[in-house]
Amino acid sequence: MTLSASEVNALKRAPEVNGVPAVFLERWSPRSFTEGEVSAADLRRVFEAARWTASSVNGQPWRYIVAAKGTPVHAKIVSSLAGFNKEWAPKAPVLILGAALARTAKGEHNPYGMYDLGAASSMLTLAAAELGLATHQMAGFDRDVARRELAIPEEYELGAVIALGYQGEPAALSSEELIKRELAPRERKPLTEWVFSAWGVPANLA
Amino acid sequence: MTLSASEVNALKRAPEVNGVPAVFLERWSPRSFTEGEVSAADLRRVFEAARWTASSVNGQPWRYIVAAKGTPVHAKIVSSLAGFNKEWAPKAPVLILGAALARTAKGEHNPYGMYDLGAASSMLTLAAAELGLATHQMAGFDRDVARRELAIPEEYELGAVIALGYQGEPAALSSEELIKRELAPRERKPLTEWVFSAWGVPANLA
Repeated sequence: MTLSASEVNALKRAPEVNGVPAVFLERWSPRSFTEGEVSAADLRRVFEAARWTASSVNGQPWRYIVAAKGTPVHAKIVSSLAGFNKEWAPKAPVLILGAALARTAKGEHNPYGMYDLGAASSMLTLAAAELGLATHQMAGFDRDVARRELAIPEEYELGAVIALGYQGEPAALSSEELIKRELAPRERKPLTEWVFSAWGVPANLA
Repeated sequence: MTLSASEVNALKRAPEVNGVPAVFLERWSPRSFTEGEVSAADLRRVFEAARWTASSVNGQPWRYIVAAKGTPVHAKIVSSLAGFNKEWAPKAPVLILGAALARTAKGEHNPYGMYDLGAASSMLTLAAAELGLATHQMAGFDRDVARRELAIPEEYELGAVIALGYQGEPAALSSEELIKRELAPRERKPLTEWVFSAWGVPANLA
């Protein structure tokens, strides 16, 4: 017998930290989505939240293609998915592909395109969680296929595909391997491994 | 006569969107900081919020060096600042430099390093805003100077310097130009310019 969606949410929840709002600790990336459609109003909300993200020289380099299941664009995004993502992500009611203008005015590569896109997408996922929506970002897709199928201009660098919808029951997933991943505890490095007072020296935050 | 900090906050606030929490709309990036110190407990909170950010294959490539004003590391970060940032950012009680492991196991450049670092940093800024703390991310710094002064290994790509502290009065800034920037309205592109149903075609989110 597997766990229910609410049981797995309890399992996935990060340890409480006084002063950190619950949404930061509760958001996670499920693979099981229900058939429930996402309203246009909720889509607008998550993009309005992302809209006010900070970006380098306020360049707002992020662009998103958003597609509801059953549309040709959704099918095109699905056609680019790789590996395990092909099994579960096509069922998500909404798929979103993020891209960023990643060139400077001189035509050079600009690393802040991806930095700012990652920022906006994380804001989108947090705003979705506030609305009771689940998201799962995927780097596992064929960028050449996505670029060709969706006619994305060369000067835009592709980011992630984001599945968006209502979380489903783990048991509804199509394989034991997917269910196993859905139930695995969330793990993160302790702060001592990545918050430093000097390179490699853990900061004292006690 | 210039505006007070609370007047400028009202001016900067994005238009209300039903269903989008206020913190997404109210967070902005001031340049005026008070002398008020940030507690170690609050620093821990903002990094704990960033800790649970989603990342590509859960790689958590982000690393941060965090430095309080008056320390040698703060001075080293200050020494890397460029342009206008040299005028206001040294007064911030905390400066944070973000970096990301941006190579694959094969040694190739991995664009998700910057993507994930941007995501974690944006979570940090939002969690800070929830605590009443202001942040201002800067791409304007000399990466070679920062890398050398802070001994950051080659395989880590530098992201942004983040000023963190309590927002100060606009009038406390050191020049007319900085005050002018502090009072300028926040501007963002409308969704029609970057949320598409197909490339270049605005999605219908009404």
